[in-house]
Amino acid sequence: MLIAEPLQTAIEELSKLPSIGKKTAQRLAIYILKSDSDAVEKLVTSLTELKSKIRFCDRCYNISTEEFCDICKSPKRDSSLICVVEEASDVIAIEKTHEYNGLYHVLGGVLSPLSGINPDSLKIRELIKRFEVEEINEVILALNPDTEGETTSLYLARLIKPLNMKVTRIARGLPIGGDLEFADEATIGRAVLGRISV
Amino acid sequence: MLIAEPLQTAIEELSKLPSIGKKTAQRLAIYILKSDSDAVEKLVTSLTELKSKIRFCDRCYNISTEEFCDICKSPKRDSSLICVVEEASDVIAIEKTHEYNGLYHVLGGVLSPLSGINPDSLKIRELIKRFEVEEINEVILALNPDTEGETTSLYLARLIKPLNMKVTRIARGLPIGGDLEFADEATIGRAVLGRISV
Repeated sequence: MLIAEPLQTAIEELSKLPSIGKKTAQRLAIYILKSDSDAVEKLVTSLTELKSKIRFCDRCYNISTEEFCDICKSPKRDSSLICVVEEASDVIAIEKTHEYNGLYHVLGGVLSPLSGINPDSLKIRELIKRFEVEEINEVILALNPDTEGETTSLYLARLIKPLNMKVTRIARGLPIGGDLEFADEATIGRAVLGRISV
Repeated sequence: MLIAEPLQTAIEELSKLPSIGKKTAQRLAIYILKSDSDAVEKLVTSLTELKSKIRFCDRCYNISTEEFCDICKSPKRDSSLICVVEEASDVIAIEKTHEYNGLYHVLGGVLSPLSGINPDSLKIRELIKRFEVEEINEVILALNPDTEGETTSLYLARLIKPLNMKVTRIARGLPIGGDLEFADEATIGRAVLGRISV
């Protein structure tokens, strides 16, 4: 046997994680092996508690430690705005900008018929239900600017507009610090189409 | 609070691992959060067992589940050869080639006075002791071809040669599949110096 069995098992488990290949998994496993027991204990506990203590918010499906997440519970947030995102990590990304003060709704993915992800797999019905019980003025679609994100945005817009709700989409354009010369045609095209008066 | 506390803790613990930055740690944590409990349990158990079940071989300091590692215990290995490597991962790398059938000795690092790693921090004394009790004919130095690896090789060669032991070093040269045109001068220089008759 080339590699001791507990090491082999750890390498296999680690390489199941996204963006971790066999070589990285081996390096991580050997690093963990050489770490002191305290550090390993802390890592293992944090992963166990991550799974056991975190649940999803009953209202917006953001990650939470209680029934409702901190954002939904906060009286300082503008509860007339809902920003629809794909994943909880997108909430973190938008929160980091400090530019948005409304609520969120985490879909849990995007429509992808080929992978078997249809509207029922996402929290779309739950979003529509929120319009009935909450006083929402505007729905901001903040899905990723790729094919599936765009398709899902279109689907949602068609679904929500008849409900007499304002639906907006976050802007596409040149990234800040980007260079016109090196941007792709699609991005420049969208930036031109989405021009605003100054 | 931007990120729920158990998630924040998990991200911090994961980003302590080598080659895992904050963004990767966040992606891994959210992946683990979305995995089913069984998968997380398996990962956590594998890491705990990695630390609790694996020890280091009493003879060669390779990773092992018992007092002596599988290589030291095997009667099929040529016990007159010792290959000196930096880390246990180097043993795995050499074993994968199937080109070596001797024993190993894992130093646990290389000499690096600036980082406070002196001969006493490594398993050098343990290596010298093996010459007294084992019948060794040849010591193969297989340390990394960087400054510290070379320095350690030189140090070991000077220490071992007076003991009337054959000391060799693995070859430096062009990597297989490499291209002369794109190789660096140091590598080409070493390849020319180390030429062998055909």
